[in-house]
Amino acid sequence: MNVLITGAAGFIGSNLADYLLSLGHNVTGVDNLSTGRLDFLDAALRNPGFRLVTDDLLTGSAWQSAFAGQDLIVHLAANADVRFGPDHPARDLEQNAIVTQRVLEATRVNGVKQIAFSSTGSVYGECPVIPTPEDAPFPVQTSLYGASKVAAEGMISAYAEAFGIRAFIFRFVSILGERYTHGHVFDFYKQLREHPASLRVLGDGTARKSYLYVGDCVRAIMTAVEKSTGLVNIYNLGTNEYCQVNDSIGWITATLGLTPDRTYTGGDRGWIGDNPFIFLDCSKIRSLGWQPSLTIREGVVRTVEYLRANPSVLERS
Amino acid sequence: MNVLITGAAGFIGSNLADYLLSLGHNVTGVDNLSTGRLDFLDAALRNPGFRLVTDDLLTGSAWQSAFAGQDLIVHLAANADVRFGPDHPARDLEQNAIVTQRVLEATRVNGVKQIAFSSTGSVYGECPVIPTPEDAPFPVQTSLYGASKVAAEGMISAYAEAFGIRAFIFRFVSILGERYTHGHVFDFYKQLREHPASLRVLGDGTARKSYLYVGDCVRAIMTAVEKSTGLVNIYNLGTNEYCQVNDSIGWITATLGLTPDRTYTGGDRGWIGDNPFIFLDCSKIRSLGWQPSLTIREGVVRTVEYLRANPSVLERS
Repeated sequence: MNVLITGAAGFIGSNLADYLLSLGHNVTGVDNLSTGRLDFLDAALRNPGFRLVTDDLLTGSAWQSAFAGQDLIVHLAANADVRFGPDHPARDLEQNAIVTQRVLEATRVNGVKQIAFSSTGSVYGECPVIPTPEDAPFPVQTSLYGASKVAAEGMISAYAEAFGIRAFIFRFVSILGERYTHGHVFDFYKQLREHPASLRVLGDGTARKSYLYVGDCVRAIMTAVEKSTGLVNIYNLGTNEYCQVNDSIGWITATLGLTPDRTYTGGDRGWIGDNPFIFLDCSKIRSLGWQPSLTIREGVVRTVEYLRANPSVLERS
Repeated sequence: MNVLITGAAGFIGSNLADYLLSLGHNVTGVDNLSTGRLDFLDAALRNPGFRLVTDDLLTGSAWQSAFAGQDLIVHLAANADVRFGPDHPARDLEQNAIVTQRVLEATRVNGVKQIAFSSTGSVYGECPVIPTPEDAPFPVQTSLYGASKVAAEGMISAYAEAFGIRAFIFRFVSILGERYTHGHVFDFYKQLREHPASLRVLGDGTARKSYLYVGDCVRAIMTAVEKSTGLVNIYNLGTNEYCQVNDSIGWITATLGLTPDRTYTGGDRGWIGDNPFIFLDCSKIRSLGWQPSLTIREGVVRTVEYLRANPSVLERS
């Protein structure tokens, strides 16, 4: 299969590229290398089945011709930081919604028949139903990030309906693992590396969050592409558990052999638009035969070990 | 109260302007006059409480300073035609989502504390729950128009959360009445004016649709603004009934004294993304004390009588 990945030099994109190449697929990556990293593609770039197009999806157009002959577009490129939306209110719309419309047009114009998209559990806002299923009550958005992702989801579904393009939409919990470059494990590890005796925690530490290992994430994406039967296929992606921020801090510090003093900024939300309880019902993707190989704890520990073994990841970010 | 209306020269905008002026409010209208009509503002322009700013929300910036000192923004400007999305796939995103983000920024920057927005029942896609309440299951979008409106809703809710701006989101059924310039009554009237003996109907005539009289619509908007207590307030707007396309054709032709031969294009959908059954649960807005003054039949008849008395509306459109 010929697969094009946008955001291929990013955390999830580069893991997906390696996974697809290991299965013998041809992979074309598109990335503007703004947050993506060439060194994440070291292995892929040595594989003759891989090609990288360095271009910007929002402002460039050279990337569009790379869509010709693809069997599947996996659109992962995004502004992925949910926390700083209020500081630059147009960025999520531009990077997530407008870019998605451009990617959809290139998909349509080049006759590509399948598109997969990385959405987020943030689209559920603060859902009254937990664990949250895909058909949860119509959400009220609480973050510009979530709003931009629900905008992209809507355009993808509408393109599917109008042009017969098959769509796979994945609502991720937070993903972690090798090449992870932002999020709470990253922030805590970075703090502890500089000041091993103290840790500042946004919120009160009781927020309940969900995480999934990136290796399980990329397997889930391809399971859905292979086994789904509908035109618009929407899946939550996560494990069957959640953890408190304080649990995660315990695993991180134990892995590092540290016992820092913790200071909490207080409140049940770490930032504006933060959701104090994220737990998705993932029975739909499980019904296709997929299941995660790592628990949340195992994923957190593996991520800390990866960061410790790869100090260059912190230096660049 | 100082109220700014975007799309003030449009169908709903001009009716709302007249209504607000009749209540003694000051009204600033913004319109690029692309589909809006200056003659719809004939009465408003004679009122010293009204001011019109002719500018384009997507490409202009002169309109932004008009937001200063407003108590309420009513954002109605939009690409309002749900049918032709697939012919120009970027238009809904630009006119509905990107413009809404620009309007939100002007609202925030100018310290305006309230915004009302005209969304649509199309955001529910083909909902399995009918009549459809505001917290219906998470929809799958079937039109680019609906997708762009759900994008705008999401950004408005996120701005409310991030910046404490109070939001009123209205999911309209199709609105009709004085100054109505597009939709099925318009299309049928126009056909019958040219060829009184024949009528071509998109679909098979059995689609069940909902309509609301524009005078009831503008009263509902202001009822919600006055009586809502939440930060993000979302209301369906419609009557407690629906009709078949064939019912509506019967009312239109009876009003005109015609008995045309009908030809049907067939199928349960009039166009790609058309929804064969739209019926919203409007008990939430009714709980504030509002109720419609006209039935769907009365609204259709009044619209036909308006079109007959105002042939210039057809000539311009």
